[in-house]
Amino acid sequence: MKVGIMGASGYVGGELLRLLLLHPNVEVTFLTSRQYSGEYIHRVHPNLRGMTKLKFINLNSSKIINSCDLLFMAVPHGTSSKSLPKILETGIRVIDTSADFRLKNPNDYPKWYNWEHPCPELLEEAVYGLPELHREEIKKTKFVACPGCDAISAILALAPIIKEDKIEKNKIIVDVKIGSSGAGAKPSLSSHHAERSGVVRPYKPVGHRHTPEIEQELNALAEGEVTISMSSHAVNMVRGILATCHTFVTSPLTITDVWRSYRGFYQGEPFIRLVRDRKGIFRFPDPKILVGSNYCDIGFEIDNRANRLVVMSAIDNLIKGSAGIAVQNMNIMLGLDERIGLEHPGLHPV
Amino acid sequence: MKVGIMGASGYVGGELLRLLLLHPNVEVTFLTSRQYSGEYIHRVHPNLRGMTKLKFINLNSSKIINSCDLLFMAVPHGTSSKSLPKILETGIRVIDTSADFRLKNPNDYPKWYNWEHPCPELLEEAVYGLPELHREEIKKTKFVACPGCDAISAILALAPIIKEDKIEKNKIIVDVKIGSSGAGAKPSLSSHHAERSGVVRPYKPVGHRHTPEIEQELNALAEGEVTISMSSHAVNMVRGILATCHTFVTSPLTITDVWRSYRGFYQGEPFIRLVRDRKGIFRFPDPKILVGSNYCDIGFEIDNRANRLVVMSAIDNLIKGSAGIAVQNMNIMLGLDERIGLEHPGLHPV
Amino acid sequence: MKVGIMGASGYVGGELLRLLLLHPNVEVTFLTSRQYSGEYIHRVHPNLRGMTKLKFINLNSSKIINSCDLLFMAVPHGTSSKSLPKILETGIRVIDTSADFRLKNPNDYPKWYNWEHPCPELLEEAVYGLPELHREEIKKTKFVACPGCDAISAILALAPIIKEDKIEKNKIIVDVKIGSSGAGAKPSLSSHHAERSGVVRPYKPVGHRHTPEIEQELNALAEGEVTISMSSHAVNMVRGILATCHTFVTSPLTITDVWRSYRGFYQGEPFIRLVRDRKGIFRFPDPKILVGSNYCDIGFEIDNRANRLVVMSAIDNLIKGSAGIAVQNMNIMLGLDERIGLEHPGLHPV
Amino acid sequence: MKVGIMGASGYVGGELLRLLLLHPNVEVTFLTSRQYSGEYIHRVHPNLRGMTKLKFINLNSSKIINSCDLLFMAVPHGTSSKSLPKILETGIRVIDTSADFRLKNPNDYPKWYNWEHPCPELLEEAVYGLPELHREEIKKTKFVACPGCDAISAILALAPIIKEDKIEKNKIIVDVKIGSSGAGAKPSLSSHHAERSGVVRPYKPVGHRHTPEIEQELNALAEGEVTISMSSHAVNMVRGILATCHTFVTSPLTITDVWRSYRGFYQGEPFIRLVRDRKGIFRFPDPKILVGSNYCDIGFEIDNRANRLVVMSAIDNLIKGSAGIAVQNMNIMLGLDERIGLEHPGLHPV
Repeated sequence: MKVGIMGASGYVGGELLRLLLLHPNVEVTFLTSRQYSGEYIHRVHPNLRGMTKLKFINLNSSKIINSCDLLFMAVPHGTSSKSLPKILETGIRVIDTSADFRLKNPNDYPKWYNWEHPCPELLEEAVYGLPELHREEIKKTKFVACPGCDAISAILALAPIIKEDKIEKNKIIVDVKIGSSGAGAKPSLSSHHAERSGVVRPYKPVGHRHTPEIEQELNALAEGEVTISMSSHAVNMVRGILATCHTFVTSPLTITDVWRSYRGFYQGEPFIRLVRDRKGIFRFPDPKILVGSNYCDIGFEIDNRANRLVVMSAIDNLIKGSAGIAVQNMNIMLGLDERIGLEHPGLHPV
Repeated sequence: MKVGIMGASGYVGGELLRLLLLHPNVEVTFLTSRQYSGEYIHRVHPNLRGMTKLKFINLNSSKIINSCDLLFMAVPHGTSSKSLPKILETGIRVIDTSADFRLKNPNDYPKWYNWEHPCPELLEEAVYGLPELHREEIKKTKFVACPGCDAISAILALAPIIKEDKIEKNKIIVDVKIGSSGAGAKPSLSSHHAERSGVVRPYKPVGHRHTPEIEQELNALAEGEVTISMSSHAVNMVRGILATCHTFVTSPLTITDVWRSYRGFYQGEPFIRLVRDRKGIFRFPDPKILVGSNYCDIGFEIDNRANRLVVMSAIDNLIKGSAGIAVQNMNIMLGLDERIGLEHPGLHPV
Repeated sequence: MKVGIMGASGYVGGELLRLLLLHPNVEVTFLTSRQYSGEYIHRVHPNLRGMTKLKFINLNSSKIINSCDLLFMAVPHGTSSKSLPKILETGIRVIDTSADFRLKNPNDYPKWYNWEHPCPELLEEAVYGLPELHREEIKKTKFVACPGCDAISAILALAPIIKEDKIEKNKIIVDVKIGSSGAGAKPSLSSHHAERSGVVRPYKPVGHRHTPEIEQELNALAEGEVTISMSSHAVNMVRGILATCHTFVTSPLTITDVWRSYRGFYQGEPFIRLVRDRKGIFRFPDPKILVGSNYCDIGFEIDNRANRLVVMSAIDNLIKGSAGIAVQNMNIMLGLDERIGLEHPGLHPV
Repeated sequence: MKVGIMGASGYVGGELLRLLLLHPNVEVTFLTSRQYSGEYIHRVHPNLRGMTKLKFINLNSSKIINSCDLLFMAVPHGTSSKSLPKILETGIRVIDTSADFRLKNPNDYPKWYNWEHPCPELLEEAVYGLPELHREEIKKTKFVACPGCDAISAILALAPIIKEDKIEKNKIIVDVKIGSSGAGAKPSLSSHHAERSGVVRPYKPVGHRHTPEIEQELNALAEGEVTISMSSHAVNMVRGILATCHTFVTSPLTITDVWRSYRGFYQGEPFIRLVRDRKGIFRFPDPKILVGSNYCDIGFEIDNRANRLVVMSAIDNLIKGSAGIAVQNMNIMLGLDERIGLEHPGLHPV
C-alpha cells in the first residue's frame, strides 16, 4: 500500500511520517512541502535523520494521484477543502487531519471559522474519524476527516455519560490544558520560548473552534441538545492535552455507576484506558505518561457536595490527537489490525 | 519593629525573610527551624547568601517573646494551633500563614483536615487576612490568619460577582493550575523532577481543603449559600496559580456590566489589576508574568452561548498567595503604607 | 528466550521492560523489586498500564535461575557484585547495567567508588558492553557489564580521534550536561522539582566516577596514557546527555580529516549518526531529538585559533545510555539483528 | 536625573525600565521603539502593567537630547554606532548595551562582526563597563559600553587567576550554558517553544563573538597573550548563564591558594559572591538562584589528576549580564552608591 503525505513539514506531518516509516504494511512514496521543497526530511524532522532518503517535494496533483493509494492531508485549515474535490474524484483514499470536513452543518464554517465552505456537498461524505464512535463507517469509507485534538479528548471523556443521559447537558465545562506543539510549527511571539515557557495562558477562554464538533458528536448520542462550555489554556509542556470536564449530575451517581458506564462503553477499545487508582502519583490521567503513545486515558471523580462529576481525559495531542488517530483510521479503512504501528506505550519519565 | 519567623526553612519562610530583609520598617531578629538549627540561612535559601548573618535557631518560646514584636508563623498545618494560645497571651502580634485559624466553624477542621481544633475559642479572634475583604478588621487585630493560596485566587476572582448576586451560586467551578512550590520544600515522589516535570496532574479533582474557606468568605458576601466545585492540577512551573472560575449567569450580562462590578469592587486596591486586552499575548491573567510580585491579576470573558461567565485570576503563590500577603497584612496592622516592601512587579521574561 | 529483570522498579528497569515487552524474540518472565513487591507494574511505570499482567516480585535466586535464560541486573551500584558470582555459576546469561564490573583494575573500585571489590576475579570475565568497541567479545560472552551513560557519550565522541593519535591526550575536557532521570527514581532535595527545575548545576565539577572507565577504554585505543578532565552539570530536562569534548590537536586538522576519521571508525554502525549541518536549528547533536531512541549523534567543529577540536555527542541516557544499549548487547549475545526492538527514532518535538 | 531608553521594547530595555522605575534617583522620561510606537508599555512588558503611564515613542533625536541627562541604548548590534557620534556631541551621558563600542581594536569588528566600524575614533573614548575592572574610568567617563553577557561571566571567572599568571593562557576553555532570553525578544524557529524546550543545543561551538572582548580584557591583566576557547550551548531555562571555565595550571595549586586569589581580587565588590560549600545542593554557582539579581556567583574546584582548575560563574543574563550592570554603571557615573536599585537577591525557588 503506497501512501503520501501532503503538508509533511508540520508537526502532524512529521509524526505521520515517523509512524508510517515503521508501519509494516505501507510504503511512503512522497512528502510535500512548499516551504522545504527539495530539502532532506531531517532538516525539519531532525529525529528522522537516516530513516528515509525521501526529500520534500512541491505539490503536484497528477503525481500524487499516480504514486499513492492513500493520501494523508496534513495541511492548514482551509486548504484541503480547496484541493480535495479533485483528488477524491480519482478514487484514492484520503485521510484529512484538518478541520475542513469535520462539521456536518455547512453553516458552522462561517460561524466558527469565518469562511464559507467551498464544497458543502462533501461534508456528508466525510466520516468523522473517531474510531470509538464511528468504526463501522470508517471501515466502509474512502474519506475520513480526523477530529480536532481537543475535541478528541473532550468527546471521549463525555460520550459514555452523555449517552446514559445522566448529566445536565447545558452546563458542561471542558477546561483544556494543552502543550505548545498544539499550536503548530510556525514561530510567533506567543510561541517564543522566553514568552511561552512557564505559562498558564488562557488563550481561548470562550469561543474555541472545536466546540461545534464536540457538540455535533455528543448530540448524536444524547436526547436533547448538548451545550459545551470550553476554555483552553496553554501550559508548559510540548506534547499533551488534559481535558478536565466538569459536569453536574441530574441524579446522584456512585463511583460504581460511572465505572459501569465507562467500562461498558469502551469495552474492547484498544486505545482507551480507564485510570483511577487509590495509590501512586499517577492516580488520574496525565498527559506526561502518554508522550509517544496512542492511548487516551480517562478517569473520573464524584463531588457529592456539588452534584458534580469530573471526568478527566489525557492524550498526546500529536498522536491520539492527530497523527496516531489518522494511522488508526488508515488501519481500519484497510482492514488491518487497528493497533499496527501504534503499539508503543508512552515514554516515562520524559 | 522587631519581627521573627517560626518555620523559616520552608518556601514561605524563605520568601518572608527575603521580603522582610529589604523592608525599611522592620528588623528580623530570629528564624526558627528544627531541621536546620545552627545552619546558615543560605544553606536552605541559597539566593540569600550574603544578605544576613542570622542562623536558624531551635524554637524557644521565651526567647521569641522577648525578642520580637511581631511573629510570623510559617509552620506546617496543625502546628501553630498547638503553640499559639500561649504566644498570644504575651500580647505580641501574630501572623499565621497556616490553615489553623482560617475557618470560623470549628466543625470544619475535623471535616476537612481530619483533626479536632485544640483551641476553637481562638477561631473567632483571628482575622482572615485578605486585605481586599477585611482591611478594617486587620487594622485593629493582633492576630491574622492568612488565607490559603488557592483560596486567595478563587475568592478574589469571584467576590465581586458573588456580591452582585449574578451567578448560580451552587454551580461554581474553580479549576486551579498550580506550580510545584505550592507543595512545599519537602521532597517526595510526586515532587521528584523526573516525575513532576511536564505534568498536568489532577492531584485533587474533588475535596480540596481550601474549599471551606472560599465558601466561608463568599457566603459572607452573598445572600443564599455558595457551593464551590474545585479541582486542582499540578502544572509544569515552580511558582504561580491560575484559577479559572466557570460560572453560570442568572441573567444575561455584558462585558461592560462585569467591568463595572470588578472596577467598583476593587477601586483603589493597590495589588489588584484587571487584565483584559484586545491585543498582545498576555491578554488575560497569567501567573508567568507575576513571578516575584504581590499582584493578583483578574480577567474575565463572557460565553453567551452557554450563559457562562469565566473569571480568571493569577498570583504568585509564594507572594500574594502567602509571604507577600503576610507582609501586606503586617503593613496594615502596623499602620504603614500597605505597599511598602511589596512594590516590585514580576520579572519578565522568566 | 526467557528474560528477567532484577531491580525493575527504577528508571533503567522500566525502560528495559518497555523495550523487552515489545521485543519479538523474548518473553519477560519476572521483575523483581524489594520496595514494590506485589504491586502492579503500572503503579511505578504508569506508561505501561495495560501492557503486562506481571507484578513485581521479591528477589528469590533459585526462582530466577529456573525461570529465565538471560538476566538483566538493574540494581544499584555495589549490589550486583554481591549476588552475581552465584548466579553466573548457573550458566545463565547476565547483562549488568551497574558499575560493578565495568572496570578491569580492581584498585579502581576503592579509589573511585570507596569499596573493595568482592569478586575481583570476575572483572576480567565481564565484557565492557559497548558494541562499537567490543562487538566480537560480546558475541562470545555470557556476561556483559554495560557502560555508564556519561562514559558512553564521552567514549563514542573521542574514540576515533584518540585512535588516530591526533590530540593532546592529557588535556581532554569532557563537559557533560545531563537530565534529571540520570539521578534515578529516588526522591531527594536535589531532585525536588522546585529546586531542580531551571538549574545549570555543576554537581560534579571534578572527580566523576565515570572517569576511570572512559580512560580504560580510550587507553586501549591509544598509545600513551589518556587523562580525562570531566565536569558534569545537571540541566533542565528529564532525559538526555550532551557531552562537549574540548581537545587540543597536536597538528592542524581540517574538517575533512575529522570527517574521514569518524566515518571510517563508525562505518556500518547501526546506532551512530554523524551530525554536522550547514542549515537548520539542529546542526549539531542535541539530546532533545533523541528522546526515546537508541542513537548516539556525534558532531564536531574545529577552532583553528586555539588548535581546538570540539566533539559533541548526544544520547538518551535511559536508552543508548542504559536500557537500550543493554538490549543491543542482548541482541548481539543472542546472535540476533542488533537493531531488533530498537528501531524507533526519537520523538520530535517533545 | 532624567533618563531615556532607546530600544525599550526588547528584553534588555524591559529590564532597564523595571529597574529604573523603582530607582529613587532617576526619572524615566521616554522609551523608544519603532515596532511598538504608540503602544502602552504593558503590551510588550506585561509585568509592568500599572507601573507607568509612558508609551513607546518613535525615535526623535532632538527630543532625546532635550529630555534626558543620560541615555541608555538597548538597540541591536550595529545600530548605536550609527547614531551615537551625534548624540555624544550634545554632552549627555550614554550607556550602550550593544557590542558597538566594546572592542578597542577596530579590526576586530570586520573580523568578528562582519562590518567595518563607522566611527573607530570613538572606540578609545568608550569605557568597557565592567565595574570590577574599570570602576575608576567609569567614574570619569560620559560614555560606557556595557560588556556582553557571556563575556561578563567569563571575565569575572578568569580575571583573578589570569592576573596571578597561574594557568596556561592558550588552553582556556569557556563552556557556556545560556537561557532563551539571551537570544532576544524576536521569534524564530530556534526560539519556538516546541523546538527550544528541553534542548542542550551547541549553537556556537566555536567562533563566538564575545571571544575578542574576553581576550581584550584578560590580556590587559596578563603578561603574554591569552587565547580563549569558547563554546556556547542553549539550555532549557529563560534567564541565566553558567560559564564553566576549564584551565590547566602551570604549577600545582591548593584550594587555599585559589581562595586567596579570588578573595583578594574581589575584596569589597558588592556584586561578587564566592560560592563553594561542603553541604547543600547549591554548593557551586547556579544561575537558578540568581534570577532577578545583579550578583555574579563564582566558585571553583581543583582536579589534581589533570592539573586542572575549573572556575564556574553564574549570572542572570538580563541583569548582571545586561540591564543590571548598565544601572550599576549609571550609579558609578553619577557618584551614587553602586548598589542603589540593585539590592534585590534572586528569587528562590523559581
